[in-house]
Amino acid sequence: MQTINIGLFGFGTVGSGLAEALCSQHERILRRSGLSLKLTKIAARSLSSLPPQLAGVELVKDADALINDPSIHIFVELIGGIEPARTCILKAIAAGKHVVTANKALLSQHGKELFAAAAAKGVEVGFEGSVGGGIPLIKALKEGLAANKLLAVMGILNGTANYILTRMTEERLPFAEALREAQRLGFAEADPTYDVEGIDTAHKLAILMTIAYGMNISPQQIATEGISTIEPVDIEFAREFGCRIKLLAVSRDIGGAVEARVHPTMVPTAHLLASISGANNAVEFCGDLTGSIILSGAGAGRLPTGSAVAADVIDIARNIAAGAVGRVPALSYLPEQIVDRPIAPLSALSCPFYLRITALDKPGVLAKIAAILSGHGISIESVIQKGRRENEPVAVVILTHTAKEEAVAAALREIDSLDTVAAPTVRIRMLGEE
Amino acid sequence: MQTINIGLFGFGTVGSGLAEALCSQHERILRRSGLSLKLTKIAARSLSSLPPQLAGVELVKDADALINDPSIHIFVELIGGIEPARTCILKAIAAGKHVVTANKALLSQHGKELFAAAAAKGVEVGFEGSVGGGIPLIKALKEGLAANKLLAVMGILNGTANYILTRMTEERLPFAEALREAQRLGFAEADPTYDVEGIDTAHKLAILMTIAYGMNISPQQIATEGISTIEPVDIEFAREFGCRIKLLAVSRDIGGAVEARVHPTMVPTAHLLASISGANNAVEFCGDLTGSIILSGAGAGRLPTGSAVAADVIDIARNIAAGAVGRVPALSYLPEQIVDRPIAPLSALSCPFYLRITALDKPGVLAKIAAILSGHGISIESVIQKGRRENEPVAVVILTHTAKEEAVAAALREIDSLDTVAAPTVRIRMLGEE
Repeated sequence: MQTINIGLFGFGTVGSGLAEALCSQHERILRRSGLSLKLTKIAARSLSSLPPQLAGVELVKDADALINDPSIHIFVELIGGIEPARTCILKAIAAGKHVVTANKALLSQHGKELFAAAAAKGVEVGFEGSVGGGIPLIKALKEGLAANKLLAVMGILNGTANYILTRMTEERLPFAEALREAQRLGFAEADPTYDVEGIDTAHKLAILMTIAYGMNISPQQIATEGISTIEPVDIEFAREFGCRIKLLAVSRDIGGAVEARVHPTMVPTAHLLASISGANNAVEFCGDLTGSIILSGAGAGRLPTGSAVAADVIDIARNIAAGAVGRVPALSYLPEQIVDRPIAPLSALSCPFYLRITALDKPGVLAKIAAILSGHGISIESVIQKGRRENEPVAVVILTHTAKEEAVAAALREIDSLDTVAAPTVRIRMLGEE
Repeated sequence: MQTINIGLFGFGTVGSGLAEALCSQHERILRRSGLSLKLTKIAARSLSSLPPQLAGVELVKDADALINDPSIHIFVELIGGIEPARTCILKAIAAGKHVVTANKALLSQHGKELFAAAAAKGVEVGFEGSVGGGIPLIKALKEGLAANKLLAVMGILNGTANYILTRMTEERLPFAEALREAQRLGFAEADPTYDVEGIDTAHKLAILMTIAYGMNISPQQIATEGISTIEPVDIEFAREFGCRIKLLAVSRDIGGAVEARVHPTMVPTAHLLASISGANNAVEFCGDLTGSIILSGAGAGRLPTGSAVAADVIDIARNIAAGAVGRVPALSYLPEQIVDRPIAPLSALSCPFYLRITALDKPGVLAKIAAILSGHGISIESVIQKGRRENEPVAVVILTHTAKEEAVAAALREIDSLDTVAAPTVRIRMLGEE
C-alpha cells in the first residue's frame, strides 16, 4: 500500500471541508484506489490549533513549511485570492510538487503562467473545485467529452446570484432585499460585487472556455453584466413570457471567433437551466457528438467543494502511484495546442431581446416604437402593455425575434430619446435557439 | 506519437457512430492526448463493404480476426446481446486485449465473470456507453465522486419509456398510442418489452449500483415494474398533485441493506428529474459530501453513445501510453472490495403513495376507504374526487403521507374487496424526501 502525502495551505471553509473529507473517507478512498492519502500538514497563519478529528495532522505557520517538506507529494492551495497564492503555487511547482487549487480568480487571471510552469516541471495541476463546487464538471469536459468538439458551454456558475434571482422570482422580493437575505444566511459576502456583477461567473467561464475550446482567454475579454439592475417587474414579465431570468455564462464556437459573455438572460422554462434554483449551479456542454449535456448540483460549500478538491487529489495520487503523471493534460488540450482565438464582440451577437420601455400612455406611442424597431430590422414577437394610466408612464414590454445586438442598441438610442419615453429602456437578452 | 489500434466488433447504430467519431475526431483526439487512435479493423458478418469515409479500415468477417490480431490493443464489442458477445469478450481478454463495450444486458448479468477475467489478466474494461448514452456518468461516479460515500443513485435510464411518458403527459395520449408513435419514429423496438417493462432500466441500475456501493447485484434482485399500466387519467391526476410520472430507477444505501427498485414514480415538478423530457436520460447521485448531483442528456443514439464509447477508448489508450493500465479499478472499488449486500425487500419500503380507487359514488364510500387506510396506519395527505355520477364508478384519488409498502398492500386488499369498489386500485409510488 502506497502512501501519498498531502500538504494543505488554507483552512477556511473549503480547506476544512477537504481536511474532513480526506480524514473521514480515508478508508473508502483506500478501498477504491489502494492508496493511503495522508493529510500530513496544514499551513494556516491565524490558527493556533486544529480540531481533534485532525489529531495526526501537523499545524504549521506558512506555506514554505509545506513546500520545503520533501515528503509532501501534493500541495493544495485553498487560501484564495491572487497573492500569496500565486507565489506559493509557483514555489511549490518549482519544488516539484503537484498542485491542487480551487482558486478561480487566480487561475482565470494567471493560469497561463501557472500551467506553463507546471508543464515545464512535469507536475500536475488539478482545479475541479474552481468551478461548480461539487459537480465533477471539469473531469466530464476534459475526459468524458474528450472525443467531442465543443460547440457551446453555458451555465449558472454563481450560487449567490442564482439564490438572489430565485428569491426574487419565488417571493417577488426586490433585489436589495434578496441580497440582504443572502448575506444574512451566509450565501453572499459583505461586498457582493464579485458575485452579483458577474465577475466571479466570468472567471469561471474563462476557465471552462480554455478547456472546452483549447484557447487562451482572460476574464477581461468576456462581456460581463450583473443582476443588480433586474427589477421584480422584469421577473414578472419574464414569467408571463414563459421564462425565468438567470445570470448565465454563455460561450459558443461560431467558427472563426468564439462568443463569451455573462449577463442576465431570459431562459425559457422548458430549458433545464431555468429549473436550477437556489444556490445550485449547472453547466451545459454542447458537444458535436453528444448534443446537450447538463450537470447540476451544489455550486459551493464546504463539503461539496471539498469533494471536488479531494477528487483531484485522488486523481493525482493515482497518477503518482501508476507512474502516469501528465496522463491527461491539465487544460485538456496539450499545452502547445492551446491557441489564441478572436472573441466575437458583443455587438455582433444575435438573439431575441426582452425590452421594457417606460412610455407615457399617449396615443401613437406604440406605433412610434414599433416603427423605430422595424426601421432597424427588428421584428416583434409579442407585446405586453399593462396598467393604462393616461399621460403617466407605463411599461411597454416587447419580446423581439432574433435581432442584432447592434441594431437593438441603435433602436434603443432612438426610442429612449422620444419625448414620450420617460426612463432608459431595460433590455435583457434571451437564450435563443442557435 | 504513439498509435493505439482498435478493433470494432459490430457495425450497427452505435458501432457506426463510434467509427465516425474516431475517424472524424482523429485530429482533435491527437491534439488532446498526443495519441493516434486508429480504427484498423471492423468485424461485421452481414456487411459486404464499409462506407467510403472508412477507407483505411479493413472489414473482416468475425471477431476472431480481431482477437487474433496482435497489433490490436483495444477490442470494442458493440453487437449487443449475451452471445456471442460474452464469449468473444472473454476470448479478447484471454488474448490480452483491453475491452470496451456498451452492452448493459451482458454486463448486468455476466459482469462478475467478465470483470474477474479482466482483473486476472490485467486488462481494462470500459463501459461508459452502457448507461446514459452520451452522458459521462460512469466516469463522474467512479472518479468525480471518488471521495464520497454514495447514499442514493436514481434516475431516468430508458429513453423509450421516458419518451412515451412525455408524449402521454404533453399530448394526453394513451399508452398504446404513444408507444406506436415511438415505434414509428424509431425510439422503440418492435418488441418494446425490455424498454417499457423496466427491464433495461433494471440492467442499467444494477451496473450503477455495483460502482456506487461496491456491491454485487443482478437485475433479478431489483423489484421491477413497467409503465404499460399507466393511464392518461393517472398522468392527469399527477399533474393536479404537482407531479409528473416517470419510470425511475431508485437505489438507496439504508445502512445494512440497499434499496433497489424500478417503477413508475410520481416525481414532484420541483425536482429536476421531473423536467427530463423526451428520449433524454438523467441520473441523480447523492454523495455524502456533494449532496445531490444530477447529470442529463441524450440517453441513446448513434453519436452520443459513440462519444461515450470513444471516451473509454481514449481513456484506455492514455493508460496504455502512460504504462498505467489498471489506474482506476473497472468497478470503482478494488475487485476484492466488492461485496455482497442484502437488498431491502420492496415490502419494507416507505414512501408516499398515489392511490386511484375506482369506487361507486355512494354515500359513505370515502369514509370506509379512509377508515381502512387509517386502520393500517396510513394517513392521507389529500383527496381528489371527480365526476359525481351516482351509483356509477368514479375515481377517488388519494395521496398518502409516507406509508409502508406492506401496509398499503394490505389496505388495498381490503379496499379492493369492498362491494362499492369496482376495479383494482392503481397504486403509484411517490418520490419521497428521504
